[in-house]
Amino acid sequence: MAVRSLENLLIDELRDLLSAERQITKALPKMAKAASSEELRAGFEEHLTQTQGQIARLEQAFEILGHTARAKKCVAMEGLIEEGKEFLEEEMEPSVMDAALISAAQKVEHYEIASYGSARTWAQELGQDQVAELLQATLDEEAETDRKLSKLAEALVNQQAA
Amino acid sequence: MAVRSLENLLIDELRDLLSAERQITKALPKMAKAASSEELRAGFEEHLTQTQGQIARLEQAFEILGHTARAKKCVAMEGLIEEGKEFLEEEMEPSVMDAALISAAQKVEHYEIASYGSARTWAQELGQDQVAELLQATLDEEAETDRKLSKLAEALVNQQAA
Repeated sequence: MAVRSLENLLIDELRDLLSAERQITKALPKMAKAASSEELRAGFEEHLTQTQGQIARLEQAFEILGHTARAKKCVAMEGLIEEGKEFLEEEMEPSVMDAALISAAQKVEHYEIASYGSARTWAQELGQDQVAELLQATLDEEAETDRKLSKLAEALVNQQAA
Repeated sequence: MAVRSLENLLIDELRDLLSAERQITKALPKMAKAASSEELRAGFEEHLTQTQGQIARLEQAFEILGHTARAKKCVAMEGLIEEGKEFLEEEMEPSVMDAALISAAQKVEHYEIASYGSARTWAQELGQDQVAELLQATLDEEAETDRKLSKLAEALVNQQAA
């Protein structure tokens, strides 16, 4: 029981991700509210809908693997969201607040990119192709969200400079 | 004083990164010791040397910006390293332990990729080109390390399958 197999590792990673995604659904509305760029606010709102779909995919993955979709507190995501929250409590120029929010969101995205990437590789190794496909679909969405945030950060910079 | 400027944001991000990098230098030797793949162990050792160079670049950036190189505890990195440490305390097949270590290391890399990316964009916006170049150099190294870890994870998978 004490020795962990790759399947255990995958299940644990999925539990960690389920906790991470749930934490994100709670944080996103606060981030949307604090954003002043209309595009950034819309982006956070869109990502909330996307996150709900990602949770549904995780639940499907648990079902395929024959495990209950039970979350395991993701301490790293707690830290990431804690850092983001600190920004919300501070007084900042709207453009600086937007820059801070984008940065916090990209840290969250990158945590997920790394986690979904590992989980996808492990699912492949275990011959769980359907699970690997579900994880890849979310991974693609997270990478796309990260790219959009980078573009938005640059656009805000250029706007300020103009 | 309470209103944060983009420069304050940059300085804070650099302080956060300084703390993160210092935490990483403490974690890497433990990860190298726990790795069974010779390539992975060598990779962690190489990354330790690289991390020391990255700390030196951060110190240079602080100097250019006229600020003391003071770290500010990076709570997110604490969480990431805590998650990695949990693996080290468990009993696992060597190949599973290597998979877990790679996953933990990629989460750390991705935190840094997001943070250095934001800091670099802000330095550019502030016209601090020399600082932006230092941060870009580290960003390139982190992205390269992440790519190497992904390749290694796939190679280990194929090795197991063979």
